[in-house]
Amino acid sequence: MTREFTIRTTKRCEFVDITGLVRDGVRKSGVSEGIVVVYCPHTTAGITINENADPSVVADIDRKLSTLVEHDDPAYTHMEGNSDSHIKSSLIGPSQTLIVKDGAPLLGTWQGVYFVEFDGPRTRKLYIKVVEG
Amino acid sequence: MTREFTIRTTKRCEFVDITGLVRDGVRKSGVSEGIVVVYCPHTTAGITINENADPSVVADIDRKLSTLVEHDDPAYTHMEGNSDSHIKSSLIGPSQTLIVKDGAPLLGTWQGVYFVEFDGPRTRKLYIKVVEG
Amino acid sequence: MTREFTIRTTKRCEFVDITGLVRDGVRKSGVSEGIVVVYCPHTTAGITINENADPSVVADIDRKLSTLVEHDDPAYTHMEGNSDSHIKSSLIGPSQTLIVKDGAPLLGTWQGVYFVEFDGPRTRKLYIKVVEG
Repeated sequence: MTREFTIRTTKRCEFVDITGLVRDGVRKSGVSEGIVVVYCPHTTAGITINENADPSVVADIDRKLSTLVEHDDPAYTHMEGNSDSHIKSSLIGPSQTLIVKDGAPLLGTWQGVYFVEFDGPRTRKLYIKVVEG
Repeated sequence: MTREFTIRTTKRCEFVDITGLVRDGVRKSGVSEGIVVVYCPHTTAGITINENADPSVVADIDRKLSTLVEHDDPAYTHMEGNSDSHIKSSLIGPSQTLIVKDGAPLLGTWQGVYFVEFDGPRTRKLYIKVVEG
Repeated sequence: MTREFTIRTTKRCEFVDITGLVRDGVRKSGVSEGIVVVYCPHTTAGITINENADPSVVADIDRKLSTLVEHDDPAYTHMEGNSDSHIKSSLIGPSQTLIVKDGAPLLGTWQGVYFVEFDGPRTRKLYIKVVEG
């Protein structure tokens, strides 16, 4: 079964902590050992795993990404004005695969899972698929 | 079963849409629910998922990657002249994992799967592995 | 079963070849066909796949990453002085998923798997999970 979730973002660029949601999805699957794929079906957003404690970490990731891949670059040819969002999506990636152990995602002490919005605010979808094994 | 495909690229940097090929691979596996790993066994190419409609999007991704990771940088020490291709490969990644639902890869409306060539033109291999679950 | 390994890094930034370890983990699992997830439970390190022959390749990846994401940037707000390590971790990613075929990870001729340290030297953990299918 693939579980679908709705994420509402409030800014153009935003890191939304979805760790609890992933944990719930794994628990509800009833699977004890396996893997879980966290998948973003959008081309101007992504999924990453990074520090869950100090919010300055994701703020710094956000800022550096926006410096490397600026919003307005005269070289962009895509007419919708969100080429930066698409580029960041391919750099961060549309999904993460985690190990499931003892009925929970196996995360490091400081790891949280983030839905990363690069072209919000929008209402987004997120898929979670647990595979036993 | 792992399915192997051949991709022929025609330029040094090129985004080859392999969405149909991934869809076919999943269909032929006969698997209805699970995941599919799309894997590139090369170190100067990668796999990404991004917009499938307006080709200016992947053109902008290609251009920005080549601005960030220039072809000729006097700091490169690898003698084959393709350090940029290797760096881009690690940034984009050698594979993507998609969810399989109702016998097809679960892609967003605007998502396509791309084999990304960073050191072509070449004849490349691509592996697709479907896991039921 | 999830296998856990310890990696000792000796420099701030370092590419540690873990291909043999992944191969051993897959062999010991007894699984012939499936996938393997190689997972780093840290937020200042990652996993990548790139050239296994000429060490100048990973040296060039390391150098370019450190040029794009500099260690000291006055814009960083995270007080631990390792924002660059966190940013690189999200760019490279915390895991890689490989196909398992004939009891071994299906790697290209020139592909090796690397644990990438971005904030060493440290003692790190690494998880390997094989899923049959």
